[in-house]
Amino acid sequence: MDIIRSVEVMQQAALGLRRTGRRIAFVPTMGCLHEGHLSLVKLARACSDQVVLSIFVNPIQFLPGEDFAAYPRPVEADERLCREAGVDFLFYPDTALMYSPDHSVFVEETCLSRGLCGATRPGHFRGVTTVVAKLFNVVLPDVAVFGQKDAQQLRVIRRMVRDLNMPVSILAGPIVREPDGLALSSRNRYLSPSERQDALCLRRALDTAESLVRAGQRSTVVLRQAMRDVIAGVPSAQVDYVECVDDETLEPVEWMERPVLAALAVRVGKTRLIDNTVLTS
Amino acid sequence: MDIIRSVEVMQQAALGLRRTGRRIAFVPTMGCLHEGHLSLVKLARACSDQVVLSIFVNPIQFLPGEDFAAYPRPVEADERLCREAGVDFLFYPDTALMYSPDHSVFVEETCLSRGLCGATRPGHFRGVTTVVAKLFNVVLPDVAVFGQKDAQQLRVIRRMVRDLNMPVSILAGPIVREPDGLALSSRNRYLSPSERQDALCLRRALDTAESLVRAGQRSTVVLRQAMRDVIAGVPSAQVDYVECVDDETLEPVEWMERPVLAALAVRVGKTRLIDNTVLTS
Repeated sequence: MDIIRSVEVMQQAALGLRRTGRRIAFVPTMGCLHEGHLSLVKLARACSDQVVLSIFVNPIQFLPGEDFAAYPRPVEADERLCREAGVDFLFYPDTALMYSPDHSVFVEETCLSRGLCGATRPGHFRGVTTVVAKLFNVVLPDVAVFGQKDAQQLRVIRRMVRDLNMPVSILAGPIVREPDGLALSSRNRYLSPSERQDALCLRRALDTAESLVRAGQRSTVVLRQAMRDVIAGVPSAQVDYVECVDDETLEPVEWMERPVLAALAVRVGKTRLIDNTVLTS
Repeated sequence: MDIIRSVEVMQQAALGLRRTGRRIAFVPTMGCLHEGHLSLVKLARACSDQVVLSIFVNPIQFLPGEDFAAYPRPVEADERLCREAGVDFLFYPDTALMYSPDHSVFVEETCLSRGLCGATRPGHFRGVTTVVAKLFNVVLPDVAVFGQKDAQQLRVIRRMVRDLNMPVSILAGPIVREPDGLALSSRNRYLSPSERQDALCLRRALDTAESLVRAGQRSTVVLRQAMRDVIAGVPSAQVDYVECVDDETLEPVEWMERPVLAALAVRVGKTRLIDNTVLTS
């Protein structure tokens, strides 16, 4: 496995691979890798000759007061996991190499990124689309793999690729969960043992919505309330949002006619967790 | 010469060229080609194996009330000029192929694009950077050639390439002028014979600034006023802006210490013309 820290070296390596007709699959991450990321690497390996995984905790997608400085960076463990998973290139750029002091160009999605996490984290998705556009230009992937856990991010990235005509296919990996249902997240390690138990309310809320839909419920007003009720039963949990939106446009819907994305963000103690499921009637 | 209207066909052709190691040079234009454009094609040919020229009158860089609908589109003459100039691919996409009805992703430069033309044409450069990013992703050039006449555009594009790590070199072509000094522009054809004469005031203003600098003048306050005085002497001419800015940051400067971009936009009758020169002490 090659470990590359220089943006230029990575781009030259990618151009070289492209010239020899190699197919590059790319898994962009913020590190602190877990089985969720590794499942994306597996998808990447299955559809390419060379897998590039990047680790970059992107400052411009964190808001003031968020956990940028505290975000876990277990470098050696990540490196070992990448080797074991069969990553060919670990791209691990410095912040100073990624952003000039007078950086002034941003990629912005103006529609899908407004609601859900975008509503409470203004500027977050502009940071995400900007860094992903940069990483795509450096790594030059044929395919890039993103997790369905960040459902809104996945849809925003797909829109960016479509609207800017990027020559990249986007592949989505399903959410990977602990045996008890908690979606894997690098932020789970912030949870105390009791919060870890309480965090199961996210999956329980989604289960409740799925059961209601299976039983014929089509009103998203009812579904949202049922999910809120589950969260309300856990004192340490505070709703950031509980939404049912059109799976494609991410616009709120009142009645299920097409696939609906049920998505929620909940603070358990101080830790903000997200989870989601696509409901189909 | 291949004429391509489909975005997908163009991108596949470009990917094919890239795989066989061909060097692609790209000249993006809005058509209505003149010797200025053809000088860029010459530069493109000199540094590549394959020259792609695009003609696309980009709706999102025109403001309401500007000349988008009226912008000249002499398709057959342009096609002939491209053949004669040795263009390999003429990429000529439909607006409907370039922008989905729900297009929602934009590339925005937030610093260099604020002053000069950006001040009086808000949103213009967002339209430019967005379409150029799109065209780069479709044409996949190694080199792209822009004219120095659109000095601010050139600097904004260079910044975009740097900040988004685009794997493209930007080459600048010098301003091409009529024998009497008028900078070539597709919009010159809007001028009546008497306006055509009056339009020489732009070059005269720049000449005046250059003479003053050669004579030792370093105050841009003086230079600006001298240029304004030249324009003021022509009744059909109305200043949009007359500026002296740092050639790199495009920030206004009062005293020449580094190269200064003298740039002006002047309405002659109803036609808005721009011109510029770099002053060095």
